[in-house]
Formats: sequence, structure tokens, C-alpha cells
Amino acid sequence: MSNFADRLIGAIRAKRSYLVGGIDPFVELMPSHVLAGVQEGDTKGTADAIVEFYSSVLEAIADYVVAVKPQIAFFERLGLEGMRAFSELLRRAAEYDLIVVGDVKRSDIGSTAEAYAEAYLGAKSEESRSHRSDFEVDAVTLNPYLGVDSVEPFLERTRSGDKGVFVLVHTSNPSAGEIQELPVAIGDAPLVPAYEVVARLVADWGQRSCGESGYTSVGAVVGLTYPEAAHEVREILGRSFILVPGYGAQGGSAEDLASFFRDDGLGALVNSSRGISYAYRSDRWSPAFGPARYAEAARAEAERARQEINEAVSSASDLAWK
Amino acid sequence: MSNFADRLIGAIRAKRSYLVGGIDPFVELMPSHVLAGVQEGDTKGTADAIVEFYSSVLEAIADYVVAVKPQIAFFERLGLEGMRAFSELLRRAAEYDLIVVGDVKRSDIGSTAEAYAEAYLGAKSEESRSHRSDFEVDAVTLNPYLGVDSVEPFLERTRSGDKGVFVLVHTSNPSAGEIQELPVAIGDAPLVPAYEVVARLVADWGQRSCGESGYTSVGAVVGLTYPEAAHEVREILGRSFILVPGYGAQGGSAEDLASFFRDDGLGALVNSSRGISYAYRSDRWSPAFGPARYAEAARAEAERARQEINEAVSSASDLAWK
Repeated sequence: MSNFADRLIGAIRAKRSYLVGGIDPFVELMPSHVLAGVQEGDTKGTADAIVEFYSSVLEAIADYVVAVKPQIAFFERLGLEGMRAFSELLRRAAEYDLIVVGDVKRSDIGSTAEAYAEAYLGAKSEESRSHRSDFEVDAVTLNPYLGVDSVEPFLERTRSGDKGVFVLVHTSNPSAGEIQELPVAIGDAPLVPAYEVVARLVADWGQRSCGESGYTSVGAVVGLTYPEAAHEVREILGRSFILVPGYGAQGGSAEDLASFFRDDGLGALVNSSRGISYAYRSDRWSPAFGPARYAEAARAEAERARQEINEAVSSASDLAWK
Repeated sequence: MSNFADRLIGAIRAKRSYLVGGIDPFVELMPSHVLAGVQEGDTKGTADAIVEFYSSVLEAIADYVVAVKPQIAFFERLGLEGMRAFSELLRRAAEYDLIVVGDVKRSDIGSTAEAYAEAYLGAKSEESRSHRSDFEVDAVTLNPYLGVDSVEPFLERTRSGDKGVFVLVHTSNPSAGEIQELPVAIGDAPLVPAYEVVARLVADWGQRSCGESGYTSVGAVVGLTYPEAAHEVREILGRSFILVPGYGAQGGSAEDLASFFRDDGLGALVNSSRGISYAYRSDRWSPAFGPARYAEAARAEAERARQEINEAVSSASDLAWK
């Protein structure tokens, strides 16, 4: 059975892409015609508009993105109607054969972690799975602060199933360093930032989740906005994938990308959320595509970003399909 | 306007209790008559049974618990029907005037953290709030790994509204120490465990959220299973409340509790989840109350736990209502 890393590599090669399309529904950035008639506080109308908008975007970008990454907070914000929209969009993504990384950043202790794992990665064994559950995705992001107990139920599904995880190592936000960069003393070794210790844990957690490719289904999240973290962490992580947020809207540049990849042109995925979905508002694409053609703008930007990332990678290493 | 800490202290004094009733719906621990006719995989039937079971439990324990703490993972596990049950139980809790701490342990960056804050603590200002949203609670648990960016939207609601937060400092699970106890070097000072640094951040974050009582609405989570963490952290946290999980089923004892409290008999809340909800299964209560009388068993255990905690607190400090 091929595992999550194998599926990911298959999609990377088939689409010649490292790009992940983030789904962060900022309602205020959506075209007004999609929201026509929706009143403030109308969660059903808003949720329906989000499904309409992102269904078109997903269809438009499916050729250029390896995976999509819905950010669940924006759906939880709309309550029950938002969760219905989340579930609906997962079904749409499956129709376009897109790998889905649920950006849920969950963390909890033993039995509760098991409940979260079941919610997002499905029941434990294939036998007990009669159908896909409402919120089931292919991989999730996880927060490591509680240690391996909080991750183990998910790891189990990377081993016995075809699921994946991406554990937060160094995030892309300004205050990421407050805890992630604390200088840690281990024995007599020189101090290391806390995120390096976390990266070692992630590498260790992934040992038993290797697929045919040799890559593991236990990945990490390292923000592009902290490229200085990339070199050391890339080394520590071995054959783990790094999911790299912060490309585009958050200010990270393509040149910084190369150090997240391994020499074989594998080992990283690059997420762009607002840059793709709301491309129709950008200086680059708004002249060609107005609000009415937002999906075409998203497609054009996905194609462009894919190309830009491929050039950055090929400047330093092979491309995965060469 | 009184803030979250003031409300909490009011409830502690009115009920002469420090007890929080955790809502962790382990379906397999519920009485079979509540689940009669519910088939494996029937999420609606399961969710309805959870609402029925916990509505009775909430009514039965409302006199003895300061707050209730639903663990959202168990609801997410059931998909859309589970989220409906979560929302329904929040309404029931409000009917019994119970403070609700949503155990969500969320963490994300800036704009996403804002979306989570809106989901669980409601819209930012009272003016823009036409109604309570589906998942709105009085306080939430938060994971600190991403630093202040991930907490700030919630902090804002402790200042401008009457909401509260409890930030994970040291959790109650076996692997809690993997990251939380990493030895951190700060300047020339002796090494301190990472959770102490987090405790200092929490104390700092709470500075501007003090109520009439002088207590802050920014609290911490410190597990009873690590009592050695309590002394130092209690000192660092000043006038913050500590939410203490791990009492009862997780193995923490009443004697360890005293060090989580301040001399004025305030500063801590003690959670018991399975111990209360599933008291009807315990050696102590099953002879008197069988499965049919599970709510009475929960009430008896809540009264007993309240008394045990009060005795532990009074052995070392005043009680808050003396």
C-alpha cells in the first residue's frame, strides 16, 4: 500500500508542482456579486457564498496545485453553517482529486487526541470504516506543545493508513520565536533553539511512517518568513516533507525557498492562500480579470506561482520530475 | 462592567466550590438505555444521546460546579451532528447559569486567531453582536506555542468583554515534559524549564485584564499530575487562575491541590470529567445508583468532590467565602 508521502510525490510529479492552495475564506475579500443578498450575520448565506466561491477556485486551480489546505478557523467562525460548508468543500476537493491538508493545528492529550484523529483522519482501521466522515481529510497540521501523546493517534494513521501529518516546528508569524526560539541547553552541547528540538522529535516520530519512496508521512511546518531556520531544520528532518507557509501575502520570497528542498527536488510543499484565491484583486491580475472572473485569475496566479517556485527550486537542486 | 475573573469569583463564593465539571463524551461509558436503538456509525443518534445524557448531568450538578468544560474533540469526532450537539449543550448550560470553558486548545497566527476568537468568544465589540453565535462560550483553553499573536484576539475579548482564557502551561499527560520541560537558558540565570517561561508570558499577557477583584481573566492550565510544577508557577502567575485538570480519573490527588491556590483561597479551579459524568459506574456510587440513575450519581460525586477539594484547600489557606 502506498502511504501519504508516496501519494504526495505522485501528485508532485504528475502536476510538476510544489504548490498548495490555501483556503482561508476572508469574506471581505470575496467579490461582491458572490455575496449579493447576504446580510451581515447571515451565516447560512455567507457559508453558501464561500462554497460557491471556493468550488470555482478549486476547479480552476486543480491542474496546478498538489494539494489544498483549508483553514478550519474560518469555517468554525460561522458556526454550524460554516462547518457544513467545510464538509461540502472537502467533497468538492475530492471530486477534483485534490489532496486535502486540514489546517487544524490540533493538540490534546491521549484519549482526546484520539477523538481529534478520528474526526480528521477517520476511524483507525480500514475495516471499521463504513464511510468517509464529515470532516475527514488526507493530512492535518498539529501543534507539538503536548509532546508525543498528542500526536500518536495521528501517527498511527500514517502507519496503518494513508494519512499524513505536518507538525508545527517554526511558524510564520511575528511572535513565533517567543517560545519556538527559546535557547535550550541539552547536556554540554551548545544551546539550540527550541524549534530544533521539536524538529528532532518530528524526525523521530516519522521513522516508522516511511513509504516506498523512502519519504515519511510525518512532515513539519516551517514558515518561509524565517528562512534562517530552514537550513538546520532541513538537515534534521531527513526524509520529511516541510509544508512552507508564508509565500505570497505573508511576505516570503521565492529565493528563500530553495533551502527547504532536498537535492532530489523533494521535501517541501509551498502554500499560497490569499495570493491565489484573491488574485482577482491583485495589481498583477485585476486588469485582466475583474471580480466576475475571479476563478480565472486564481488559475493564472496558481500557474504563475507554480512556475516561480519551480524556477527557485531548479536553481539549487533537481526538479522532482527530472 | 465586571470581567470574567469577577464572574468566576462570584460563582466560586455563591456555590462554595472550586469544581469544574468536564464534559468528555465517551460514548462507550454512557448507560446503554441512553443509547438504545443507536447503531454503530449513527452520528445523529449518538449526538442526540450525548445531549440527553449531559443535559441531565448538567442539571444534576449545577449546584456544585462553578463551571463546565466541554471537550470539543469528542463533538468534532461526530462531524456535523456532533457540532450541533455541542451547540445544543452550550444552550443547556446557559439555562443552568453555568460558566462554560470551551476546551478547544486552539492556536494559530494573526488573522486566523481572530477567526477562532470570533468562533468561541463572539464578535469583538458588544455593538456588533446581534446574538450569541453557535459555539460561543465564556472562556477557552489556548495553546501558547505560536506566541502572543495567537493569543491576542482572545486577550482583547478579556479586556473589552467579559471573556476569559486559560493558556496551557504544563499539561497533565505523560509526555507533557518533552517540550514543556526543556531546560531554557536566559542570560546568566540558572536554567528554567520552558513551562516557567510560558507562565511568565501568561502573567504578562494578563496584566491588562484585571477586574474589580484584582484577578486577571487570563489564566493558565497546569496539570495536577505534575504537582512539582505548581509551586513555582503559582508564584509566577500572580493573580491568574489556574485550571487544574487531572483530578480523579487521571490520578491526581486532593492533597496535591493546595499548592495551586493562593492564601486568599482563590486562584484555582479543579476539573473532574469522567469522575463526575460516569460516577454511576464507579465502585463508590454504582451500588447506590445504577445506570438508570446516572444523573443522581453525578450529583453525589460532584458534591463529594467539592467537599474533598474544599477540605484540601482549607488545610493550607482560607476558603474564598470565609
